[in-house]
Amino acid sequence: MSWDPISGSLDLLTLQALYRSGQLQPPDLVAAIDERIERCLSDNIWIYRLPQAEVVAQARRLAALSPAERTALPLYGIPYAVKDNLDLAGHPTTVGCPAFSYTPIESATVVRKLAEAGALLIGKTNLDQFATGLVGTRSPYGPCRNPFDPAFIAGGSSSGSAVAVAAGLVSFALGTDTAGSGRVPAGFNNIVGLKPSRGLLSTYGVFPACRSLDCVSILALTCEDALAVFEATHGPDPTDPFSRIEPATVKKYGSKPDFFRFGLPDPAHLNFFGNKQYATLFQAAVDQLVALGGEKVEIDFAPLAETARLLYGGPWVVERLAAVRNFLNEQPEALLPVTRQVIEGGRRFSAVDVYESYYRLRAYRQQVALLWHEIDVLLVPTTGTIYTLAQVEAEPLALNTNLGYYTNFVNLLDLCAWAVPNGFQPNGLPMGVSLIGPAFQERYLAGIAAALHRQRSQTLGATRQPHPAGSGNGYGQPSTPDKTMLTQT
Amino acid sequence: MSWDPISGSLDLLTLQALYRSGQLQPPDLVAAIDERIERCLSDNIWIYRLPQAEVVAQARRLAALSPAERTALPLYGIPYAVKDNLDLAGHPTTVGCPAFSYTPIESATVVRKLAEAGALLIGKTNLDQFATGLVGTRSPYGPCRNPFDPAFIAGGSSSGSAVAVAAGLVSFALGTDTAGSGRVPAGFNNIVGLKPSRGLLSTYGVFPACRSLDCVSILALTCEDALAVFEATHGPDPTDPFSRIEPATVKKYGSKPDFFRFGLPDPAHLNFFGNKQYATLFQAAVDQLVALGGEKVEIDFAPLAETARLLYGGPWVVERLAAVRNFLNEQPEALLPVTRQVIEGGRRFSAVDVYESYYRLRAYRQQVALLWHEIDVLLVPTTGTIYTLAQVEAEPLALNTNLGYYTNFVNLLDLCAWAVPNGFQPNGLPMGVSLIGPAFQERYLAGIAAALHRQRSQTLGATRQPHPAGSGNGYGQPSTPDKTMLTQT
Repeated sequence: MSWDPISGSLDLLTLQALYRSGQLQPPDLVAAIDERIERCLSDNIWIYRLPQAEVVAQARRLAALSPAERTALPLYGIPYAVKDNLDLAGHPTTVGCPAFSYTPIESATVVRKLAEAGALLIGKTNLDQFATGLVGTRSPYGPCRNPFDPAFIAGGSSSGSAVAVAAGLVSFALGTDTAGSGRVPAGFNNIVGLKPSRGLLSTYGVFPACRSLDCVSILALTCEDALAVFEATHGPDPTDPFSRIEPATVKKYGSKPDFFRFGLPDPAHLNFFGNKQYATLFQAAVDQLVALGGEKVEIDFAPLAETARLLYGGPWVVERLAAVRNFLNEQPEALLPVTRQVIEGGRRFSAVDVYESYYRLRAYRQQVALLWHEIDVLLVPTTGTIYTLAQVEAEPLALNTNLGYYTNFVNLLDLCAWAVPNGFQPNGLPMGVSLIGPAFQERYLAGIAAALHRQRSQTLGATRQPHPAGSGNGYGQPSTPDKTMLTQT
Repeated sequence: MSWDPISGSLDLLTLQALYRSGQLQPPDLVAAIDERIERCLSDNIWIYRLPQAEVVAQARRLAALSPAERTALPLYGIPYAVKDNLDLAGHPTTVGCPAFSYTPIESATVVRKLAEAGALLIGKTNLDQFATGLVGTRSPYGPCRNPFDPAFIAGGSSSGSAVAVAAGLVSFALGTDTAGSGRVPAGFNNIVGLKPSRGLLSTYGVFPACRSLDCVSILALTCEDALAVFEATHGPDPTDPFSRIEPATVKKYGSKPDFFRFGLPDPAHLNFFGNKQYATLFQAAVDQLVALGGEKVEIDFAPLAETARLLYGGPWVVERLAAVRNFLNEQPEALLPVTRQVIEGGRRFSAVDVYESYYRLRAYRQQVALLWHEIDVLLVPTTGTIYTLAQVEAEPLALNTNLGYYTNFVNLLDLCAWAVPNGFQPNGLPMGVSLIGPAFQERYLAGIAAALHRQRSQTLGATRQPHPAGSGNGYGQPSTPDKTMLTQT
């Protein structure tokens, strides 16, 4: 097997085959990752790297296990990163704000579960401060840059997590996703972002953005990998007030269905903010879904667009204020001006406003619930366009809002979503699409998402590595080049 | 059949048998009811009686139907009343506040469904103003009085509905239940109150109290009758933002299980506010449930008691303010002073308070969710005691709060409840107990509730009529006198 320590793919199938055959041991892998991180051209990915001695100690403990013990660990020796708004016991959590930093005594439930599954933690990643933003530039630790072109943004707020995966530094990373923070950076990095149903991955030990909506999200190279991480991390957690139990009737496995109906936004609402390349790529995704057995249904996107506007135009921003208000009152200058401006916006809402917006949301939710009688899945661009760092700096609020056009409504409407790669612009920048469904349908959607991914992007992240052979597990079709796809230059 | 037009029972089994045998026609029944209402000693039950010509016209339309058409109507010719916070097209809704009165052009969804099921509407009933109160005395239309002793309260806010059923003026009545408004008056009137799971009975056309919590409730003479009304009125309604669909896994029928575990509050939290008679009656209900196959489990009532305190101590009162604030700002003097004081209390909460209390509620909800691994049903007194009108007038807020001690937490925690009669004090005043379970378990609980009712109270409401023979439908045991029951004097 010709796996290169510096460029070899870190997808799960590849690593698991290497471990099974004895060609790789966790200590070799963490040495290779240390070198990859040193060589990596993308900067500002990490807020905190775990001390190398600690990483090596983890790897050695795993290497010392018996074959039977290894087999029992579903993520044995799989390297990962976590966004720095998730707690790791004994190490600082900054939430992107150094003055706010604290050192928790307990790890987040999901971090604990990953350790129990045998995964190898490498470090904690950069983010838009207080997970407020979709750009990846709102950080005192420096902006994250797009690995395909450093003039462009990486997307946020799970920016460091996405770039770490795309750059081949880790197999997967945890992010969070309230408004789109797990999907937007997946779209800009040619990787997969799973935004699970609310309440399935515990948010215990996650510093809140909008606590009633926050989700832990999974950034990975393939849908299969994201699903494996989901299976290892989900489950009810009584310590999380927003934890939920999956209904017993939910499908536990999702190969691609032979036939499905997919919605797409009506033309009046399909907005690419002037980006014709993204429009062309989206049409190619639509055609590809039809080729995969999908029947296309144009849907009225108005209630979703209006719900999206509620998230920052309505009182949910009060939740961000509730999370940091003592710190904000004491050290307002410790926040970035743009973050402070957004969070201070919560002060303008009254208690009556909170309930009235909630009533409006419930009405939209009923409208959208009817949608799932017409379609099985909704296809949208993950974002309508991509911006440069300079553009975002010039218009930090308006462009951030544009990036949430197809993502902001998802948690408010209690939906789940897969963001998957959808090819490249002629200038080499990636575009993503999202497959959205009702809560608890992530496994059903996974089959369609994986099939679409294999058709629409042949390389994983920015690694130039192909999809692993023998993945699929019944997902999708064999990977054949798609003539409509624009080439990566 | 010796059914007396003036004193004969209006329970469904009795009326349906009379209709089937041709011994009764709807026009005869409405004539009898008109006379009963005129003779009734309890005053202030009605805010609005439907014009007699209109009632007669309804009855004649029903009488003109073919036998097959009658059979298709599950509530053919069953007389009922609705609380005056539910809309009836073309007739005034006052919500207990004459200056606020409006005439809707559409009926509430549940009222429409009852008409479609063949039920006969008699009129609209008195309530605590804006459904704010558990006493039944906060009404400009006069207080409702307890039919067993006019010095005592009837309970509220669905006071008129409860007394109308107990007095034998209608077979059942719709109420609403946010804090306990459907259960407290059931308990004080020796009748059954079903507080269904939130979202199963549409609240479209119901004037809101706390819109996110409001439920339409059913007051009836027996559990079987309440369940029949539930079956005719529930169902998803896209026009109601809070409508919910029952999970497919829910049991559709509930005969009494041979074995079940029931919880009761730990002694530190079991509060009868000094009423030893109620304490004795509650113990008799516990013993009866054991005799019916129940295993008794003492539970930690603290999270339920703390949740109950949130309802009026926390920001949910803001919802009451949201519902009436324009009217309140324009005509503050049009409200009763006590109602105004309660609703104005909503002004002290900030938007941050709303979210923070919601987070606390979610934490309590997770604690209580674990309870249902230990028990199948929770038994509590419906109220810990009963008060006179004079006592309530002297301490209108504190005593009202006491009455909600066992009811306020139910909707906040997304539970359902049956309030059932539990015998009488030596002075003849009734006491009720409630059987509480998780959302969507009303049918399962019905079997236990019906069995307990038959054992604990042998007469229906204040009618002195026995349980109908041949009811049961598999519910409960044959009715045998219970030696522990205090007699009705």
